[in-house]
Amino acid sequence: MNKRKKATIHDIASKLGITASTVSRALNNHPRISDATKKLVTKAAKDINYQPNNIAAALRNGKSRLIGIIVPTVNRNFFSSVVRGIEEIANQLNYKVIISQSYENFEQEVQIVDTLLSARVDGIIMSISKNTENFEHLDRVKEKNIPLVLFDRITDSVEVNQVVIDDYMGAYKTVEHLIANGYKRIAHFTNPRKINIYSERMRGYIDALKAHGMEYDQNLVIESNMQLEDGQQCVKTMLDQGLEFDAIFSSSDYAAMGALQALKERGIAIPAQVGLAGFGNEPFTSFTTPSLTSVDQVSIPMGNVAAELFFELLKADPKKYVPQKTVLKPDLIIRESSTRTPSKPNSTPNSK
Amino acid sequence: MNKRKKATIHDIASKLGITASTVSRALNNHPRISDATKKLVTKAAKDINYQPNNIAAALRNGKSRLIGIIVPTVNRNFFSSVVRGIEEIANQLNYKVIISQSYENFEQEVQIVDTLLSARVDGIIMSISKNTENFEHLDRVKEKNIPLVLFDRITDSVEVNQVVIDDYMGAYKTVEHLIANGYKRIAHFTNPRKINIYSERMRGYIDALKAHGMEYDQNLVIESNMQLEDGQQCVKTMLDQGLEFDAIFSSSDYAAMGALQALKERGIAIPAQVGLAGFGNEPFTSFTTPSLTSVDQVSIPMGNVAAELFFELLKADPKKYVPQKTVLKPDLIIRESSTRTPSKPNSTPNSK
Repeated sequence: MNKRKKATIHDIASKLGITASTVSRALNNHPRISDATKKLVTKAAKDINYQPNNIAAALRNGKSRLIGIIVPTVNRNFFSSVVRGIEEIANQLNYKVIISQSYENFEQEVQIVDTLLSARVDGIIMSISKNTENFEHLDRVKEKNIPLVLFDRITDSVEVNQVVIDDYMGAYKTVEHLIANGYKRIAHFTNPRKINIYSERMRGYIDALKAHGMEYDQNLVIESNMQLEDGQQCVKTMLDQGLEFDAIFSSSDYAAMGALQALKERGIAIPAQVGLAGFGNEPFTSFTTPSLTSVDQVSIPMGNVAAELFFELLKADPKKYVPQKTVLKPDLIIRESSTRTPSKPNSTPNSK
Repeated sequence: MNKRKKATIHDIASKLGITASTVSRALNNHPRISDATKKLVTKAAKDINYQPNNIAAALRNGKSRLIGIIVPTVNRNFFSSVVRGIEEIANQLNYKVIISQSYENFEQEVQIVDTLLSARVDGIIMSISKNTENFEHLDRVKEKNIPLVLFDRITDSVEVNQVVIDDYMGAYKTVEHLIANGYKRIAHFTNPRKINIYSERMRGYIDALKAHGMEYDQNLVIESNMQLEDGQQCVKTMLDQGLEFDAIFSSSDYAAMGALQALKERGIAIPAQVGLAGFGNEPFTSFTTPSLTSVDQVSIPMGNVAAELFFELLKADPKKYVPQKTVLKPDLIIRESSTRTPSKPNSTPNSK
């Protein structure tokens, strides 16, 4: 299998009849090496297609100038925007970024952590999979003193730098907005997994209801995987079961979109009969009819902060460093799907 | 800077008072090494947090089991779906994937090619940036016998495996569909860059018009960067200039979406007064009102084929291998924005 063998400094050395150490110093522009030798070495390196080996350099000094990012999927505006925010900072510092996807699969997440470590990234910035409940792979990263930063989907089981938005406040403000628009039976779409983002949004939902003297009815909390089809199905089930509701606050824009489609299909007017709000501010939320109220997760700033925490950690002494948690304020983006005159009496779909 | 120094087999060897070669053979489960020694070595490796170095192994045998993917951006359903298609095949063969983004920036593209090569990926699968007109960085990859596969955005300047859809046919079928729906003045949104996808779609547009005895009017070809805002602006300019048109075939779904918004804003009925079709079948095209006709680029199969060509190349003798070009058939997805009764006489927006 010689055909893919890489040229080394030894090849240059034997070609020129000098030592490998002289070649190395020539390539690194060492002052003790003559310009004539440097020229010879540079030419020989080019002739045999020698590639200065950054990885070998990384093995020596622990710096590959490469950050590994792990996200559940890049096919969500939120995650790809956080990556962009990370790259904005990384590129200024001449760092490059490589991305891997866990596809919400725990095994895959563990494997790509190992892949990135083997690729000698200088550190990892990641958002954990919905299904991750065991965090030994993160402990391994920490034990090796490899900088690790978590964003959005975090865990308190590992002491590391974390960046989140205030999911509780995002949910609270959304529900408060729905109440101000006269909605009285507000359903909540959530995910049964025990990860921070969904439990915090649920907490915000419940507290906002209570703060406004409204009953918290567990029947109005609908669990699903919150994809588009789940949103459609949840609405159909709610309608078919005769559940009384006049608004939906969905922890996912995709499920909110599915709800919008199913409600329109049944001839239910949005926002007149049912108000609707999502979470994530995916670009399509401004394209729908009616446009969809949603919570913006300030993804670019989140990426910026994650990168800044990463570089802070990179230059710190890991033994003395105290991990930080940064909490960013989300923005409620009010659009047509939840805006109506609250004084106007409206009938809920199942109350005749 | 010792704190991040990685443990090596030399550390294990000196700890146990044996040779590094014995440590290496023990870790690789060599039959000549006793089970007792293997146990000792394994324990010592764990104690000092030694990480078997896949990269070092890759340096020896040229196999990191890692594929580097370069896309203009992951924030397009098309690109993230192609990546998924590549991963479907790669995972079956126990290969992992890392992704980098060029952000349509030539300098960045060149740098990440070098980054991936330095990270010793076994090969690269990529879609070139809109602005790439110099291909020396691809020549360098080829010269090193690193497998390289291009998809969607390709170039004929470098002889490599390529996967594209039949952009010409996708455009031809779309324009034919618009003609069948009674549209007579069909505008075309395109990008001024000379990359294959846009020129092929333009060719399909022109040929479909001619095949149906319709005039090709250069005034109806509007060049822009084809983002959402560009589509809005193009429509406004067309209307303000009094350009007569009754349909738009956009080479980008984003520009088509912008056109849809601008047309609705001006009170122009879609599809009654103006028909509209995009390209790319981004998920939001089915969420809009009216839903948007578009060309599906069979992204998952494209990723599958790109990965298959990659593995074929990986095991082939690069000196004997003849690069292939695979052309996939796109699907025209007909939705509301272009479907009307062709017999009904309709006025174009600027003809009173």
